[in-house]
Amino acid sequence: MTEPTPRRTPAGAAVLREDVTEAIRDAVFEELAAVGFARMSIEGIARRAGVGKTAVYRRWKSKLSLVLDLVGAFAAQGVPVPATGSLDGDVRALLEMASYALRHPIASQVIPDLLVEAARQPEIADAIRAALLDGQQGVMARIVREAVARGELPEDTDPAEALDLVVGPLYWRLVVVRTPLPEGYVDRLARAAVAALRA
Amino acid sequence: MTEPTPRRTPAGAAVLREDVTEAIRDAVFEELAAVGFARMSIEGIARRAGVGKTAVYRRWKSKLSLVLDLVGAFAAQGVPVPATGSLDGDVRALLEMASYALRHPIASQVIPDLLVEAARQPEIADAIRAALLDGQQGVMARIVREAVARGELPEDTDPAEALDLVVGPLYWRLVVVRTPLPEGYVDRLARAAVAALRA
Repeated sequence: MTEPTPRRTPAGAAVLREDVTEAIRDAVFEELAAVGFARMSIEGIARRAGVGKTAVYRRWKSKLSLVLDLVGAFAAQGVPVPATGSLDGDVRALLEMASYALRHPIASQVIPDLLVEAARQPEIADAIRAALLDGQQGVMARIVREAVARGELPEDTDPAEALDLVVGPLYWRLVVVRTPLPEGYVDRLARAAVAALRA
Repeated sequence: MTEPTPRRTPAGAAVLREDVTEAIRDAVFEELAAVGFARMSIEGIARRAGVGKTAVYRRWKSKLSLVLDLVGAFAAQGVPVPATGSLDGDVRALLEMASYALRHPIASQVIPDLLVEAARQPEIADAIRAALLDGQQGVMARIVREAVARGELPEDTDPAEALDLVVGPLYWRLVVVRTPLPEGYVDRLARAAVAALRA
């Protein structure tokens, strides 16, 4: 059986296969936004991608593996480690990156959707941990380590609690309260978070 | 047509009606935990409650109105306003209450589920705002007002940003990271949050 024809016209068979894969990935993303994980179906994804169901099942065994793939790709972009030379600068830089990342639909819509599923499916909990937390926890651990080395933070500063203090307020505002950030918000939050870390 | 028989045996018709209502409310709660909002159906609720679908539709027009009713009841419990006489004490008391409330399944599972739906259904966004935010924002506004009056906070302290700093880290830890609170966590967070508020 030949690959169903995707919407774009490819130059050759290899391109065709990649185009189908990309069309499916785009369709998953659009379906997640439109109907959410629970209601999403392989049929709906295939229809939106303009391919047959077999084309989807040949690549991914279930809608869960499709979504984990998407979240994994988002996580793989990685979180660059700020190295501004001061705790103030590093916290400010981490907040800038987090405020950008948390406005991405993967973070503001897809991950909260999956967090809810995670209570019922442990595989999802692990994928989210990898996508949302591991990167940020690693970055925060390094920021704390360097600040301790510079004498800016006490030696017993817990990196996980530091991450709560820095990223928690921003997550709450962007994902829960969902009001636009007022002018100067990230600056004020950076100052407040550094004071909290030093308390 | 008579009311379908609920699982418990009631003493009379009035009791019967209330029992059915309660059985349906319990069933909604259990269904939300088991399958989530998107997959939940009136059929499933009726089956779990041991009543007919008509018994549900006689009381609520849709699964949305059923869930909004449940969230509304949670919100109506209200958030007591701490009045300890100091900013430290009030923040500590608010965090104690929030850490209790955020561990309730309505806050840790049902509301995040509905937050995801809220992006697609504005009615849900309004109900969550009322259930999760209005109460806490009101309490925080009062804590800030009294702290300003005592000279503990600057006059231009924004209550919404204050709430981000106090509740955000706890929400992130309990609802996103989902690891148990380490010993002394609420105390450390209260101290850090007060330092953040004063920064």
